[in-house]
Amino acid sequence: MPFSITKLAHVEIRVTNLEQARHFYSDLLGMVETEADSGRIYLRGLEGREHHNLVLRKAESPGLGHFAFRVSDPEDLDRLKGFYRNLNLPVKDIPAGFEKGQGEAIRVQDPLGFPVEFYHDMDEVPRELQAFHRHRGSYPMRVDHVNVQVTDVQKGYDYYVKDLGFRVSEYTVTEEEKLWAVWLNRKQDVHDIAVMNGTGPRFHHFALFVQDAMSVIRTCDVVAGDDLEAQIERGPGRHGLSNALFVYLRDLDKNRVEIYTSDYLIPDPDWKPIRWSLQDKKRQTFWGHIPPASWFEEASPVESITDGTLIKPTPAVMQDRPAFVT
Amino acid sequence: MPFSITKLAHVEIRVTNLEQARHFYSDLLGMVETEADSGRIYLRGLEGREHHNLVLRKAESPGLGHFAFRVSDPEDLDRLKGFYRNLNLPVKDIPAGFEKGQGEAIRVQDPLGFPVEFYHDMDEVPRELQAFHRHRGSYPMRVDHVNVQVTDVQKGYDYYVKDLGFRVSEYTVTEEEKLWAVWLNRKQDVHDIAVMNGTGPRFHHFALFVQDAMSVIRTCDVVAGDDLEAQIERGPGRHGLSNALFVYLRDLDKNRVEIYTSDYLIPDPDWKPIRWSLQDKKRQTFWGHIPPASWFEEASPVESITDGTLIKPTPAVMQDRPAFVT
Amino acid sequence: MPFSITKLAHVEIRVTNLEQARHFYSDLLGMVETEADSGRIYLRGLEGREHHNLVLRKAESPGLGHFAFRVSDPEDLDRLKGFYRNLNLPVKDIPAGFEKGQGEAIRVQDPLGFPVEFYHDMDEVPRELQAFHRHRGSYPMRVDHVNVQVTDVQKGYDYYVKDLGFRVSEYTVTEEEKLWAVWLNRKQDVHDIAVMNGTGPRFHHFALFVQDAMSVIRTCDVVAGDDLEAQIERGPGRHGLSNALFVYLRDLDKNRVEIYTSDYLIPDPDWKPIRWSLQDKKRQTFWGHIPPASWFEEASPVESITDGTLIKPTPAVMQDRPAFVT
Amino acid sequence: MPFSITKLAHVEIRVTNLEQARHFYSDLLGMVETEADSGRIYLRGLEGREHHNLVLRKAESPGLGHFAFRVSDPEDLDRLKGFYRNLNLPVKDIPAGFEKGQGEAIRVQDPLGFPVEFYHDMDEVPRELQAFHRHRGSYPMRVDHVNVQVTDVQKGYDYYVKDLGFRVSEYTVTEEEKLWAVWLNRKQDVHDIAVMNGTGPRFHHFALFVQDAMSVIRTCDVVAGDDLEAQIERGPGRHGLSNALFVYLRDLDKNRVEIYTSDYLIPDPDWKPIRWSLQDKKRQTFWGHIPPASWFEEASPVESITDGTLIKPTPAVMQDRPAFVT
Repeated sequence: MPFSITKLAHVEIRVTNLEQARHFYSDLLGMVETEADSGRIYLRGLEGREHHNLVLRKAESPGLGHFAFRVSDPEDLDRLKGFYRNLNLPVKDIPAGFEKGQGEAIRVQDPLGFPVEFYHDMDEVPRELQAFHRHRGSYPMRVDHVNVQVTDVQKGYDYYVKDLGFRVSEYTVTEEEKLWAVWLNRKQDVHDIAVMNGTGPRFHHFALFVQDAMSVIRTCDVVAGDDLEAQIERGPGRHGLSNALFVYLRDLDKNRVEIYTSDYLIPDPDWKPIRWSLQDKKRQTFWGHIPPASWFEEASPVESITDGTLIKPTPAVMQDRPAFVT
Repeated sequence: MPFSITKLAHVEIRVTNLEQARHFYSDLLGMVETEADSGRIYLRGLEGREHHNLVLRKAESPGLGHFAFRVSDPEDLDRLKGFYRNLNLPVKDIPAGFEKGQGEAIRVQDPLGFPVEFYHDMDEVPRELQAFHRHRGSYPMRVDHVNVQVTDVQKGYDYYVKDLGFRVSEYTVTEEEKLWAVWLNRKQDVHDIAVMNGTGPRFHHFALFVQDAMSVIRTCDVVAGDDLEAQIERGPGRHGLSNALFVYLRDLDKNRVEIYTSDYLIPDPDWKPIRWSLQDKKRQTFWGHIPPASWFEEASPVESITDGTLIKPTPAVMQDRPAFVT
Repeated sequence: MPFSITKLAHVEIRVTNLEQARHFYSDLLGMVETEADSGRIYLRGLEGREHHNLVLRKAESPGLGHFAFRVSDPEDLDRLKGFYRNLNLPVKDIPAGFEKGQGEAIRVQDPLGFPVEFYHDMDEVPRELQAFHRHRGSYPMRVDHVNVQVTDVQKGYDYYVKDLGFRVSEYTVTEEEKLWAVWLNRKQDVHDIAVMNGTGPRFHHFALFVQDAMSVIRTCDVVAGDDLEAQIERGPGRHGLSNALFVYLRDLDKNRVEIYTSDYLIPDPDWKPIRWSLQDKKRQTFWGHIPPASWFEEASPVESITDGTLIKPTPAVMQDRPAFVT
Repeated sequence: MPFSITKLAHVEIRVTNLEQARHFYSDLLGMVETEADSGRIYLRGLEGREHHNLVLRKAESPGLGHFAFRVSDPEDLDRLKGFYRNLNLPVKDIPAGFEKGQGEAIRVQDPLGFPVEFYHDMDEVPRELQAFHRHRGSYPMRVDHVNVQVTDVQKGYDYYVKDLGFRVSEYTVTEEEKLWAVWLNRKQDVHDIAVMNGTGPRFHHFALFVQDAMSVIRTCDVVAGDDLEAQIERGPGRHGLSNALFVYLRDLDKNRVEIYTSDYLIPDPDWKPIRWSLQDKKRQTFWGHIPPASWFEEASPVESITDGTLIKPTPAVMQDRPAFVT
């Protein structure tokens, strides 16, 4: 029986200055603050009823703390523990309340090297979806997905699809028909996680889903209005792959966040994945824009669940970007 | 094991004039025509890869031909046949190709009196999602859901939830805490079908999902630009329940279609349904608008799968509308 | 030589509760506060560089304090004084600073009975147009125009066109070809003032121009999000006349404000006015909606510049609304 | 007395393939075709009531045919003739009907080297503003302004402001406080013409005003949907100067057209111009994007009214772009 993973549920990022990060994610981008303490700020999107969807954690340097998948069957926490132990991977019990509002959880260092949490219970909080008079910035609905870089995408595919039961919505191949990147979902939009070729393990970005293109435009305006236009790295544009209208920002610690809208629903589990060639320019940007090299070169280090250090990534084996990006 | 229903997949409506209906649904609302013959026009939404999502069928009078659910497991067609036969309900085999592009299917008259089809196979056709230069009118992504009226909503709930494995996203109760309406899904948005108290069985409306509020505004402009403003029945407005920004149109045969956007994603199967009171004005229209009485009084008759006649509905037992609608 | 009137420049409305009015116009609708004292709050739109565009004045009862036209030639203040004195109408000198930020001005009770101010100088303040991170609510660009009710529209036309040099953009006639309403401008959009048949003199509404349809939708959401949906009187809809996409709100004192967008530019002084029939339903609402009777029946009283009392209006002579409004 | 110029009224561009240009400007961008013959296609924007707003003229090579200002006083045609003859500049009478739908006109080679037409009469045609069911592509309201490159901006300023009575809305200066570019208007939005430093005389672009940001996004989607994404040169972005949300396209002959929205209204003739520094990055793009070098280097040659040849431009004297553009 496959694991009952429902979605990419939250992301914990490391930030060096909590106030500065709160201003960026809450005042400017509009994430809603549920609770905070001296080390963490817990935020959620507008359609969220769970305690948190994004955690800003004070740290010496930026990077990924962890990302979390929710399981709908609480017994899967034990099954997952067994699965990772069988692979001789680090597994850690996280007691209820260690993350505020969250029940018992486990954290693992997954086969690709990422710190991943699984949980079932989280406190319910009031939804802000219709408190329109309090909405700000990007009007972010939810943290929708993460994108990670690995040196072996085929291994990432095998792990997510065969072991964890994810489905493929779209994928990219090289001229040699090797898997270069894959978009994987459990929930019914285009992805919960994308696994992309590159220096890895690195955390490329997490994404906030917004309801319309105007929210992407407004994001740029709001950020630049506050004189933070240097944080706009790429876009607005439209991805060919996924059809998302997007803009990529770097927070003041250089963690990358995508604001996007207009992908599509995939209700059929037997959906036939859409294939793209790495060298197809419209795959990256349907409007023909060339992405900046930084978008391929730079990504955040990820944390070891064992000792909290940042893991040194290994350079990409295959080409790390399309030929037209220089 | 529950049935593998993935989604409300298509709707067949009866129209008295195919050309007039083609103009309305394709030229004005922007549904894409896949194929047509002397008796039927097959349309699909912009994100669709299946042959059809909406069928306009020439008939003497308007009404619902049938609506269809897709099953991801082809063996479920036989299991469903058995299920409905056990209930002594009419079941009919539909040979492959009877609906163009569709494989073998079954049709039943369900316990609530509706003509419902189940199928597994349908031809794949090119997706128009990124053929933006051909998009028209409302830019409809898909036929997303149907809404039906019955005289016994509790029975409808039991059938859909207990027998067919649907989940409840939101629901409405009367002052006496009786179930007045229920929003039910298999896919992960707010509904595939809503079952609403009223004279029944009647088909209240089907809904086209659009990507943003501007598409709702544009729908009104396009329809009124073509001097069909009398077909705009209600809205634009925002529903409290589901958060949908909507407009309701009546086609020239009085079949009702909703154009809507901005509900939300429900990835968790253990989602706790949202409760509304029938008398809460913001349930119907978050902006305080009173719906027209016609929206409660008028709906389309539904067809018998046995002989193609229209079934005479029975008046509602409970109040058929909130007290503030007169 | 015609007077150098440039635009409808600001409106002073009477409100019974300054805090409540500030919340409505500033927190919810997004007008920017320049300054306030115990009796008045001075607000401006986002594209404004003048000290104020809207004044909320504490009073015992709601109504119109005055509206103001700016003249680009300071000597016109004297010429206007002479003009109104010749008509034996009340004229009052307003010393510089009486309205904060404003230079010397005059106030008159005009031939139609309205309290009108003329000024030339006003302090320049920083424009908030690109301070996007501070924008709120409707994102209102400016107070664009006013709409007034009079019992003799022909007289209003003669006064504004022949005496003050306004131009006509669009107008409405009855079945007997009598002038029922007229849209008049000095600046180059559809109007600075509309003069409409009805019980008068009464102040029907003032209007905030917003940049797009989404701002009209957001206005409804924000107001209803704060549980003030009862203040939404009419719309959203599109006017046939002027093409404006609109919503009409009543503030908590019942003063009426329109939020609108998408009229058009009229750069040619010899523009041929567009004619509409009162009974043409699309004139009122292009989408076919019937306006509520309150929209025709209710309007705000206007103040006497002589003693500050509210002027008792006279009932309309002609029909005060289209036949289809009941 | 100043000349009664009302607006930049139309642009005639040279195209090498009329069908290809019709597809680009009419099918994709949505300009409405009024009339055509073997040598010219006459187009207008959606809010236009004049016969044409854009002329596509078949020619051997691309470039500017002419642009035209309308005068509201027909006697100004003679006065303008005298003015240009006094300057010993070429002046040509254009008989009524030479441009279809247009009355008598004059053409001049202006002091900056550009072919400019002045006219008073043009046939009225039905407005398409509310024929929403026929709107396509960008939904362009009007040809709003032109932008030209000259080697001496100060001379351009003197000519337009002192001789023709234009007003300045915004301007750009170099570090040495020399005028680098100036935005000039007669109608009440930000400009009818911008005069920019560079190799000149060259025609940089003309601009279509659209009603909202979504129309800018849709333009990119429509053009890329038709596989013409290589024609998207710059943007979408927001200009700091003028606040316009824009995208720049090159037609298939490399003529440049801007699609833009959200500048502001300037009703006061004594508007105090807004000053920008050439090296201020937010002047060019408020969101911090660096424009492509092509945007500064490439522009269209302009035609001689005397013999129809293309005028050889002279290289810029001052720096032709900000230091940050490489």
